Amino acid sequence: MDYQAVLHQIADDVAPLVGRGTPAAYIPALADVDPSRFGMAVADLDGKVYGVGDWQRPFSAQSITKVFTLALALARGGDSLWEHVGREPSGNPFNSLVQLEYENGIPRNPFINAGALVVTDRLQTLTGDASSELLEFLREETGNPELAFDAVVAESESAHGDRNAALAHFMASYGNIANDVPTLLDHYFWQCAIEMSCADLALAARFLARHGLRADGSRLLTRSEAKQINAVMLTCGTYDAAGDFAYRVGLPGKSGVGGGIVAIVPGHCTLCVWSPGLDARGNSVAGVAALDRFTTLTGLSVF
Amino acid sequence: MDYQAVLHQIADDVAPLVGRGTPAAYIPALADVDPSRFGMAVADLDGKVYGVGDWQRPFSAQSITKVFTLALALARGGDSLWEHVGREPSGNPFNSLVQLEYENGIPRNPFINAGALVVTDRLQTLTGDASSELLEFLREETGNPELAFDAVVAESESAHGDRNAALAHFMASYGNIANDVPTLLDHYFWQCAIEMSCADLALAARFLARHGLRADGSRLLTRSEAKQINAVMLTCGTYDAAGDFAYRVGLPGKSGVGGGIVAIVPGHCTLCVWSPGLDARGNSVAGVAALDRFTTLTGLSVF
Amino acid sequence: MDYQAVLHQIADDVAPLVGRGTPAAYIPALADVDPSRFGMAVADLDGKVYGVGDWQRPFSAQSITKVFTLALALARGGDSLWEHVGREPSGNPFNSLVQLEYENGIPRNPFINAGALVVTDRLQTLTGDASSELLEFLREETGNPELAFDAVVAESESAHGDRNAALAHFMASYGNIANDVPTLLDHYFWQCAIEMSCADLALAARFLARHGLRADGSRLLTRSEAKQINAVMLTCGTYDAAGDFAYRVGLPGKSGVGGGIVAIVPGHCTLCVWSPGLDARGNSVAGVAALDRFTTLTGLSVF
Amino acid sequence: MDYQAVLHQIADDVAPLVGRGTPAAYIPALADVDPSRFGMAVADLDGKVYGVGDWQRPFSAQSITKVFTLALALARGGDSLWEHVGREPSGNPFNSLVQLEYENGIPRNPFINAGALVVTDRLQTLTGDASSELLEFLREETGNPELAFDAVVAESESAHGDRNAALAHFMASYGNIANDVPTLLDHYFWQCAIEMSCADLALAARFLARHGLRADGSRLLTRSEAKQINAVMLTCGTYDAAGDFAYRVGLPGKSGVGGGIVAIVPGHCTLCVWSPGLDARGNSVAGVAALDRFTTLTGLSVF
Repeated sequence: MDYQAVLHQIADDVAPLVGRGTPAAYIPALADVDPSRFGMAVADLDGKVYGVGDWQRPFSAQSITKVFTLALALARGGDSLWEHVGREPSGNPFNSLVQLEYENGIPRNPFINAGALVVTDRLQTLTGDASSELLEFLREETGNPELAFDAVVAESESAHGDRNAALAHFMASYGNIANDVPTLLDHYFWQCAIEMSCADLALAARFLARHGLRADGSRLLTRSEAKQINAVMLTCGTYDAAGDFAYRVGLPGKSGVGGGIVAIVPGHCTLCVWSPGLDARGNSVAGVAALDRFTTLTGLSVF
Repeated sequence: MDYQAVLHQIADDVAPLVGRGTPAAYIPALADVDPSRFGMAVADLDGKVYGVGDWQRPFSAQSITKVFTLALALARGGDSLWEHVGREPSGNPFNSLVQLEYENGIPRNPFINAGALVVTDRLQTLTGDASSELLEFLREETGNPELAFDAVVAESESAHGDRNAALAHFMASYGNIANDVPTLLDHYFWQCAIEMSCADLALAARFLARHGLRADGSRLLTRSEAKQINAVMLTCGTYDAAGDFAYRVGLPGKSGVGGGIVAIVPGHCTLCVWSPGLDARGNSVAGVAALDRFTTLTGLSVF
Repeated sequence: MDYQAVLHQIADDVAPLVGRGTPAAYIPALADVDPSRFGMAVADLDGKVYGVGDWQRPFSAQSITKVFTLALALARGGDSLWEHVGREPSGNPFNSLVQLEYENGIPRNPFINAGALVVTDRLQTLTGDASSELLEFLREETGNPELAFDAVVAESESAHGDRNAALAHFMASYGNIANDVPTLLDHYFWQCAIEMSCADLALAARFLARHGLRADGSRLLTRSEAKQINAVMLTCGTYDAAGDFAYRVGLPGKSGVGGGIVAIVPGHCTLCVWSPGLDARGNSVAGVAALDRFTTLTGLSVF
Repeated sequence: MDYQAVLHQIADDVAPLVGRGTPAAYIPALADVDPSRFGMAVADLDGKVYGVGDWQRPFSAQSITKVFTLALALARGGDSLWEHVGREPSGNPFNSLVQLEYENGIPRNPFINAGALVVTDRLQTLTGDASSELLEFLREETGNPELAFDAVVAESESAHGDRNAALAHFMASYGNIANDVPTLLDHYFWQCAIEMSCADLALAARFLARHGLRADGSRLLTRSEAKQINAVMLTCGTYDAAGDFAYRVGLPGKSGVGGGIVAIVPGHCTLCVWSPGLDARGNSVAGVAALDRFTTLTGLSVF
């Protein structure tokens, strides 16, 4: 398929939407981003990357990194992870405490904040340094040794981190957090603060299109585990808009409040789109539209 | 693919699970079913049907009919349906009123009871006789003119229908029901009480694998609409176990408390499995396991 | 105490508030009331009544009648009532279904709509004609044989009664309603539709200030039961503003959306105030202020 | 009234209940208390104290101190406190986060943990040392200079304080906490860890029976403010059993998980009862029964 032509077509089609929505404003480091940015990249199974617009410009990956942390925690620790976190859509905003209380401190899925804190807690227990483990993995998969945490963003997250601190302490009160809460929060905030481009993210997610195989051909996950992560992305990857995202786009995807979205076409390719303006549920307005166009133009959808 | 061999393999593999779980007991007509039943059918794109076990024995389709009512309401009335019902997973049991109250009488999706009542209400407004419209459609798609409502089941549903009456009156109080509540409930209970076999259901759902085309080749839904219904099935089709079903099976599916589950492999085939024993979330124990085996044996999964 | 002078002082003090707030508008029969009405009455232990303003003009008693239905159900059926309804504040709007679902169909207290439906259901079982039983009691306590249901209001309630129908069917689904739901709703709506003046209501409630003794000196309730109803009024009598009402007024009270409020000074007197403009929580704006003034001017508060 | 005779009668009557229920076990320091303890004290308006059983033995005052912190915050800072905390019953367990989320970080009342954290936060802002301010006040009202924090209990609370940390961080995320969360928690835990006897607590609460006057005759609160605190105690003082406590006892009261309960008879006396065995809602089994007996024997109830 001529991905390059498709990307140009998409960029034209969604241009009127770029700048719509509102960049995340809960920390100054994110609020300052230029809302007119738009980039999109496709990585095929062989690692060839196609791009358009700001596809090589790094942005704050934020919650997209939750996919990689989940994959590493499963790869390192196996299925027992699912005793500590569910895999059902939450039906609530990403940082809600309500369901957590009704369900005794077990978060609904690994992609709401509470669930990602549990996954990070597990990876910390398994490796002793969750955020370094993640960074190392991302550098290897992208072949980009310059990937790094943005210290300003991480500190800003920490300074505005009361909601996440509440989630972590709350789960700790149910015995569902093993590590010291402030240490856990540090690793969590560092992970959110990784800067990556669309090209980087499309490359890093490639193991999900390759049924578990890493860039170097070694196996990170079994075929079944890769399929399972794709399933969780489809049902839970875009906050409480997962149903609408599946309806419109029809691909496993994971969004971040930095304005990025990663999507997977199993057996075909990975995609990453970025544009900072968010809709009311925290997903990139132009990003969702671009993925919608992609599946329409290419017929590549899981349904 | 040799579906027949696959079905025999599956029947062997899940035999130890048949009889596990508990048949639905909220109405006598369902509680009396023989829990040792198991049947499974596959219909290919051309309408050829393969089966194993009790694949030709009729059972109470129950909530599986919600898929067909949704398709008919969309086909007859179009997208305005989505002003009255959402398409997000509910994160709550299928007959919960809680979310309905927080969200002002708009049900989360068409597959929880509240949502199906809204869809039936729309179909009733569009056609004047929602349950007959549904029955006629099912007879045509299956080529089985003997499909019928089970009057005993329908009356039993009605006699135990206080929860559904509460849902309907509650939504009516928000102005989200257009028809008289008792009339609406009658049509709703008749729909649930249709008796169909695995073969019937696999045939009836074939338009979802054929991108919207009916048995006679005419178009019921656009390609895009068919894809959208598949997406809603994947994210919302198995009550509050949709995430787990996607994780294990990885196919759009819709279950009923009669013990049946319909699943779609877009572009390939449709499946229906039946075994009355239900798990705690209302899905057939042996049925889910059989679909899990199917995707493992055939590699046919959307992920 | 010179109640007459106190009442005139109060009428002067709250005059600027009369007309503030919004009369109940959910049924036309209530929306048409003149918002500039204000009346207040005090009945002493001997049945002498003092009044000011529109104290002799009948208005729709609405939820105030829930106090009398509760007293009759306790008098006729005793403590087993409390197996079917709690006596805790609800912390939610008066017609919410949320708590009802979490607590398996047992309403929080007899003064939210769900609880009053249960109490009416019990009275119906005990007497065979709950609304007539109530009307007869009120005629005897007030000495006013002309007290009657307002058929227009009752029919209007019924026509807009989907929310109450939802509550009743929902509780029936938990086995907490014994009578046929439509019959129960009829009796419930008739009770709400009784027309009474401030003078009538102050007289009718006198058994609560007289430790259980009726107007004719016979005993309706034990001293302990009368105290208990006063306690439930204080903690639950003014919807989800009970805490604020206790804070400001400090008396057991029960309000209705017709704009009336009955309050009790145990061992001293009963009060009723009426003014149709309601605050956001459904209590009369001028009415609450008038009771606040009463306790300030007289020092008669339970605290 | 012969309080001494009444107390002996009560001690006899409730003896069979002493030892029933379960002492609080969430921290070891509380779990080790002897469950067979029972003491009760009455302080009259002049400060004369009557007692029975273990009425002079110190125990962990726990949440009872919330009454005094509230009084001090109102006395020092006035009504603006109510912009930060409500005064409605919560209808939920004392440490629930659910309502807090639905109501944007404003706790329902000052006696649930979240509300007490807000009150402590205000007192900390007003005085710079909330826990010392409280201790000093209690020493003065009781005339007991030996009142002190139990450091073992305070440290134990802190070590098991994840739920309270979650509440504080959660409210901080809404801007409803002004001080550093760990500092606030320290003061909160110290307050809970004050050791007092029934005699101490009955004396300390006397300003609520004396319409705002302290032991030395100076005014802590206006008459109206004292009445208001009594009202909040009645509607919110015994966790989610406030309605039942009002129903059975009919007095403003505040309980603690140490097994103590303080109650107020405005204009007459104050009471404190202690017995460590708690019911399912966290109130002393023998304590509630003893207060129930007190109002029955003396006729002293607010209703």
